[in-house]
Amino acid sequence: MATGEFDYVRWLRAQTPPDTRVLVGPGDDCAILARPAGSVLITTDILTEGIDFRLAEIGGRSVGQKAMAVNLSDIAAMAGLPTAAVVGLVLPDGAGSRALAEEIFRGLRDVADRFHVPIVGGDTNTWPGGLVVSVTVLGEPIGKGPVLRSGAKPGDWIFVTGRLGGSILGRHLSPTPRIVEAEILHRRVKLTAMADISDGLAGDLGHILDESGCGAVLMAEAIPIHADAVRLAIQTGRPPLDHALNDGEDFELVFTVNPEEGAKLLREQPVLGLAKVGECSESGLQLSEGGVSRLYASKGWSHRVE
Amino acid sequence: MATGEFDYVRWLRAQTPPDTRVLVGPGDDCAILARPAGSVLITTDILTEGIDFRLAEIGGRSVGQKAMAVNLSDIAAMAGLPTAAVVGLVLPDGAGSRALAEEIFRGLRDVADRFHVPIVGGDTNTWPGGLVVSVTVLGEPIGKGPVLRSGAKPGDWIFVTGRLGGSILGRHLSPTPRIVEAEILHRRVKLTAMADISDGLAGDLGHILDESGCGAVLMAEAIPIHADAVRLAIQTGRPPLDHALNDGEDFELVFTVNPEEGAKLLREQPVLGLAKVGECSESGLQLSEGGVSRLYASKGWSHRVE
Repeated sequence: MATGEFDYVRWLRAQTPPDTRVLVGPGDDCAILARPAGSVLITTDILTEGIDFRLAEIGGRSVGQKAMAVNLSDIAAMAGLPTAAVVGLVLPDGAGSRALAEEIFRGLRDVADRFHVPIVGGDTNTWPGGLVVSVTVLGEPIGKGPVLRSGAKPGDWIFVTGRLGGSILGRHLSPTPRIVEAEILHRRVKLTAMADISDGLAGDLGHILDESGCGAVLMAEAIPIHADAVRLAIQTGRPPLDHALNDGEDFELVFTVNPEEGAKLLREQPVLGLAKVGECSESGLQLSEGGVSRLYASKGWSHRVE
Repeated sequence: MATGEFDYVRWLRAQTPPDTRVLVGPGDDCAILARPAGSVLITTDILTEGIDFRLAEIGGRSVGQKAMAVNLSDIAAMAGLPTAAVVGLVLPDGAGSRALAEEIFRGLRDVADRFHVPIVGGDTNTWPGGLVVSVTVLGEPIGKGPVLRSGAKPGDWIFVTGRLGGSILGRHLSPTPRIVEAEILHRRVKLTAMADISDGLAGDLGHILDESGCGAVLMAEAIPIHADAVRLAIQTGRPPLDHALNDGEDFELVFTVNPEEGAKLLREQPVLGLAKVGECSESGLQLSEGGVSRLYASKGWSHRVE
């Protein structure tokens, strides 16, 4: 019987509650979503076994949670709200693939449900290779519209939404996408640029600087270092700050605002964990440490496409 | 240097022409699309090396073409027009991954450009496993709105848009998504149900029947058999009709209309290759051959999720 795929789709459909935004859910050639109120955000991320997770150690449910969270983090980075997701699965062949698919789906839903995101469709495959989970999420801008990476200006203040570094010790598996924090910040002040920290603070701030055509000075003493970065530093022999600046998968937000708005944020602290970490400059990324500034090169994560 | 991923993204951005439907293209946390005129179709398909293609035999460009075409085929199956695509790539590690990524992108664009679909974003990864290409396509309904699988009624006539079977001999790599044909048919008549033939005529018609709660009688003599099905039958020893009914990846459309609309289609032949292959009944899928009807069980393709 080669009907497993369709049995699984039937199970999925039974798990999918009605949602007024979803005109047609899983099971047809396409899903159909109600007309959005404005423009449409779209992002996609693929996670692969051995690179983004070790399946045998963490299990399918954690994989699903991470796969959904990293995509929602990209929506948060635009100050958007997620509206729908589709999921592509490539499962390792053999007995247990159905149970694994269900575990992954539960993990996806754990995170999607917290942010009211319906999973409207997908594609489920098997092969003799490792597990691959591909998620695409749609979103909608709110309030002042989407926040790009390109709006930072010299003089803007730079903030992050939480402590950084050492996420590889476990936090990287269950990040909290900063959807709520981004919404609060976006309604409270004018964000000039924003990104999520997936490749390390220095790297992702670097993307903002590249797109905005400016530079920045990061204040070493102001960077909130996570306890995991300190623990990891003991193992690696590198300074905790080095981990806070360069470790990937924090999934906090880094954003810029003008100084007036920045002062307002420091005064009002509308979200927990907010920290001013530096200011934008004309060009170059510098790190100021003990009163001495030096050019700083990101050591953040990137896939080798060579 | 671990900057290959971002170099590739820069290259991608340089390849992406402006499009009025795309407010922000590749390179930010999300792409941003202009507000759609109506509801939003969304579909996703993942292709994997060794299952959906043999990379060493066909090369990256063909992989890209197929990955885009099979997704557009799902938009066609709703009688929609595609509006945007995002692409997730998982490339095998090592030298040559950049060249492969570019070849795949060229293949994706070969097909996307024919149907005016901008590729607005993606995610590019490397790993020690095989090639995986995930594509998600958005679309918009036209005219009378999206055509579901669920609207067929007993008495409706069943049509296909072209010859079937034996696509594995090569046609499965470069299918023509029936976007244009679907649009013409949808404007000319009222389509009651439609699907693309990815799992075999019997299987995909079966999905329509399941969703519509009716049955069908297929007329063996009326099913347009592709020359490839005849060639393949010589190799397999199975009847060509068996291949036409069950081989996957034809990517033609199967659809239903009421008899008046069906007669109009036969008279006017608005698209090439149109063939009436049967009629809907109260229940069950039957094959009528030489004047004798028998219950017919699909042998179409499904992934084993067990």
